[in-house]
Amino acid sequence: MKDIVLHPIGIINTPYKTQENIPIQGRFDDSVEGCCVLYDKYSEGLLHLDEFSYAILIYHFNKSEKEEIKSRPFLEPVEHGIFAIRSPHRPNKIGFSVVKINKITGNKLFFSQVDIFDGTPLLDIKPFIKHFDNRDNVKSGWLDKHFKNGNIPDETILNKR
Amino acid sequence: MKDIVLHPIGIINTPYKTQENIPIQGRFDDSVEGCCVLYDKYSEGLLHLDEFSYAILIYHFNKSEKEEIKSRPFLEPVEHGIFAIRSPHRPNKIGFSVVKINKITGNKLFFSQVDIFDGTPLLDIKPFIKHFDNRDNVKSGWLDKHFKNGNIPDETILNKR
Repeated sequence: MKDIVLHPIGIINTPYKTQENIPIQGRFDDSVEGCCVLYDKYSEGLLHLDEFSYAILIYHFNKSEKEEIKSRPFLEPVEHGIFAIRSPHRPNKIGFSVVKINKITGNKLFFSQVDIFDGTPLLDIKPFIKHFDNRDNVKSGWLDKHFKNGNIPDETILNKR
Repeated sequence: MKDIVLHPIGIINTPYKTQENIPIQGRFDDSVEGCCVLYDKYSEGLLHLDEFSYAILIYHFNKSEKEEIKSRPFLEPVEHGIFAIRSPHRPNKIGFSVVKINKITGNKLFFSQVDIFDGTPLLDIKPFIKHFDNRDNVKSGWLDKHFKNGNIPDETILNKR
């Protein structure tokens, strides 16, 4: 099957230059703000997105330097298939984050629930639609034991000081 | 910023050769089954994914022949920014679906909640993790009025016979 060539639509700016204090998923730290800066020709694509609470960001894990088929996630030293974990070191290195929309002005989307490195190439933005994207009665495989009774493990924030 | 070259990890087979009867989102028709067929070298990446209820498929809208910045969605004749709707005719043409995992055998992932055309190039699979991906208290912009009181509009199934 043919290769697919993508062109970034902008860049994601965040306070995270390194892994230190970055959450493994944005919802585990609400206090930090990031910003998607779109190339001007895409600005109009943001029209009415400010009426949504959340957006889905699709981006490129450009800092990843390896591709794995099986690996161990941050939360446990057990090997799983790469498609059963959320590691960046995956085929095609596509990242996916649900982020909270704070404000949109011109070509900028300000958001919280950040788990993305500064300088990440942005590929797409989709509105998070509860009627499409939420699911009930979900088994979350090897992760459920780490989140028992609504518990959020410390390891959801990396290299915490 | 540099172009990004992706290599499909497999192909998505579904009964949908045309738009007829395809739901705009898979959860609006549970009765149809699709199958991700991975290239052999990625088979091991599926290890333990069968312990999850849902998977996120990331794929390429290869049938789309145009790129729009603003457009009208299926559910209403009002123009919105492309990043506030889920149209395939978007920059980079990246598709995203949450699907229900039925069975995994070898290099094949069988799923329901299908909204994808037959022959679609598959780029990534991620486990759907309720602790990461569900959101409460969600405003879904222009869509909420179409889903009032849990109502699912007929237009969620295209060209219904």
